[in-house]
Amino acid sequence: MNVQTLKGFRDFLPKEARKRQFVINTLKKVFEANGFEPLETPALEYEEILLGKYGDEGDKLMYRFKDLGDRNVAMRYDQTVPLARVVAQYQNQLPMPFKRYQIQPVWRAENTQKGRFREFVQCDVDTVGTASLYADAEVIFVAAKSLKELGFKKFKILINDRAIFKDIDTQVIVTIDKLKKIGEEGVLKELVEKKLALDQNDALKLFNQIKDAQPTESLKLLFNILENIGISKDEFEFSPTLARGLNYYTGTIFEIEVEGYTVGSVCGGGRYDGLIGVFANREIPAVGFAFGFDRLMEAMEELQLFPSTLSGSKVLVTMFSKDFIEKSLEVTEFLRRRNIQTEIYLDPLVSLDKQLKYADQKGIPYAIIVGPDETEKNVCTLKNLNSRTQETLSLDELLQKLR
Amino acid sequence: MNVQTLKGFRDFLPKEARKRQFVINTLKKVFEANGFEPLETPALEYEEILLGKYGDEGDKLMYRFKDLGDRNVAMRYDQTVPLARVVAQYQNQLPMPFKRYQIQPVWRAENTQKGRFREFVQCDVDTVGTASLYADAEVIFVAAKSLKELGFKKFKILINDRAIFKDIDTQVIVTIDKLKKIGEEGVLKELVEKKLALDQNDALKLFNQIKDAQPTESLKLLFNILENIGISKDEFEFSPTLARGLNYYTGTIFEIEVEGYTVGSVCGGGRYDGLIGVFANREIPAVGFAFGFDRLMEAMEELQLFPSTLSGSKVLVTMFSKDFIEKSLEVTEFLRRRNIQTEIYLDPLVSLDKQLKYADQKGIPYAIIVGPDETEKNVCTLKNLNSRTQETLSLDELLQKLR
Repeated sequence: MNVQTLKGFRDFLPKEARKRQFVINTLKKVFEANGFEPLETPALEYEEILLGKYGDEGDKLMYRFKDLGDRNVAMRYDQTVPLARVVAQYQNQLPMPFKRYQIQPVWRAENTQKGRFREFVQCDVDTVGTASLYADAEVIFVAAKSLKELGFKKFKILINDRAIFKDIDTQVIVTIDKLKKIGEEGVLKELVEKKLALDQNDALKLFNQIKDAQPTESLKLLFNILENIGISKDEFEFSPTLARGLNYYTGTIFEIEVEGYTVGSVCGGGRYDGLIGVFANREIPAVGFAFGFDRLMEAMEELQLFPSTLSGSKVLVTMFSKDFIEKSLEVTEFLRRRNIQTEIYLDPLVSLDKQLKYADQKGIPYAIIVGPDETEKNVCTLKNLNSRTQETLSLDELLQKLR
Repeated sequence: MNVQTLKGFRDFLPKEARKRQFVINTLKKVFEANGFEPLETPALEYEEILLGKYGDEGDKLMYRFKDLGDRNVAMRYDQTVPLARVVAQYQNQLPMPFKRYQIQPVWRAENTQKGRFREFVQCDVDTVGTASLYADAEVIFVAAKSLKELGFKKFKILINDRAIFKDIDTQVIVTIDKLKKIGEEGVLKELVEKKLALDQNDALKLFNQIKDAQPTESLKLLFNILENIGISKDEFEFSPTLARGLNYYTGTIFEIEVEGYTVGSVCGGGRYDGLIGVFANREIPAVGFAFGFDRLMEAMEELQLFPSTLSGSKVLVTMFSKDFIEKSLEVTEFLRRRNIQTEIYLDPLVSLDKQLKYADQKGIPYAIIVGPDETEKNVCTLKNLNSRTQETLSLDELLQKLR
């Protein structure tokens, strides 16, 4: 038997799981502080709810099957279509605008050779039911604030307006969208190859026409609001070549790049007024963004933004032998009551060496030994597992040290 | 098109989702404080990993299908079998004992007419790799501590030892296990009907033999440890008729009932030394428990244990009109900087009445109005949306009031 996970699926062991929790908790705090509320939707939906909403590729990569009741069901592919269903299904009880965040896994049968995963967490923030530009500004503010809270010092919010492209052939935009990947030269070449431009010169003219476009009135107003609500001028910029998934964005679009992480943007979003109403059969304006959760994790790792104190317990109280169990329990209780996160080793029959190795493996920085010598003198031995030093301390000194 | 969720699947709208988060966060805090670490496993596994591990019923209720690569896959059915896989797959890198918690959804095609759900969260805490009775005591301690942290004032931990039943026919135990559901009379009747006892008298003798059993030596020791680590005598009791899923428990078994909630126990667990080694091909001792998450939520609701402050924002700053937007932004910023959770309404074109209704719907208790009168006098109007009263306040008075 293959005792392993499926290709593209991952286990998260404690160290990694804790980092993920840190990021998710930080994001939730920012989202909540700005009035966004949690939403959870099921992993499985009627297939007809999801099918046809993500283009041919989406239909192909979706996990679909017949359940035991012969229903055609599909696994959550993103969180926007379920949001659209929720908005239609509960339209009489949801406050409008509906400001929600959603952080759940989605499943896509992606080609794993491209380094893609088949199960990954999406982290969406959306405001549904208002066309106000203040909603656009707020979601951008929340995205930026989230990055600051996570510890990113420098980032750039690239902003554009879908209206910039209104007279441009969609195929041209698809090509321009590759600018970051293939560079200006690559874009020009592709414009010619795809017969979107007559020649190199013509391609350059076309490219410059977009590159030199001026911000729309809506963008100018948005930039004003952003400055007003505390996004500084060097944190955002107008980026006329920014295109994004043009098929559903209808207004403001934006991406955020963080300094020191070059794989790509960690966040993207915009206004999409045509999508959320699909089940309610009327246009419902919406604006929002998603963090690329795996990218965010990677960027945090590369820039070393995870706090060093993420590991759980601060100290392991060992068990010297059966005769000193109560001493160990006493010390544990003493420290816990004083809010020192304390773990106790559970088996007095295991050698001290093995117990210390256990602390090491779990990343617990200190260990306490209470044996016959310590008991006689009413002290503890505190081992620093990083420096491999130890000292003998009274309970009060111990507390001082661990604080 | 059916714009709805599948039978047995649920959306959690903000109010409910927030309550779930509150419970999960409280539990995580307790688990972490006792050295348990988070583990996440994928929603999909190779079918052969899960199949045959849960008896015929499990195989029948499991969501299984062929994926696009023609692999037989199955959706997570519980969190114990994935734990067993993880223990085998990473055996050289996991610290032993491996103390992990896991809080993820599982999927079972249950009969929904019985009020069961097909997607529900499991919340498991297990210590793998030690046979020490201190591990049994610790998981019981953690379960009890969790309930206390959630606000349950009175509960009873029923404890038994699988060894009590060692000379008893399994069918008898299955019947005794129904004691709470069908009562003593029902049990006696079933013992006769199933020909496990000759007659009513014989059945009573058999039942009393179990009911009057004495605690094993192991249990006596366990009870001692429990008292030592702060579980008071009136919080636990020996319950010789407690049976639980006998097919895999091998030692200590326990359940917890909370006072005031009569549907059933909210927590159950025990020692199961034969299960976790199934993929590692050797016996690996383990002890743990699971909270019935939906029951826990229901009990919290019935006993009104959710804090009243769970709703997000404390105050909504309205937008009077386009001319007073900056005033509203200023007040918002002022309050946020002073840690008052403040939401701002995003659209100055929406009537004040509608904005106040929005605050009401979201359960935000206060609203602030800054219009021409307020601006002239450099004050705000604070509306209490519960009492429907309002007062005019300076920024400092406002702060005082909201704190």
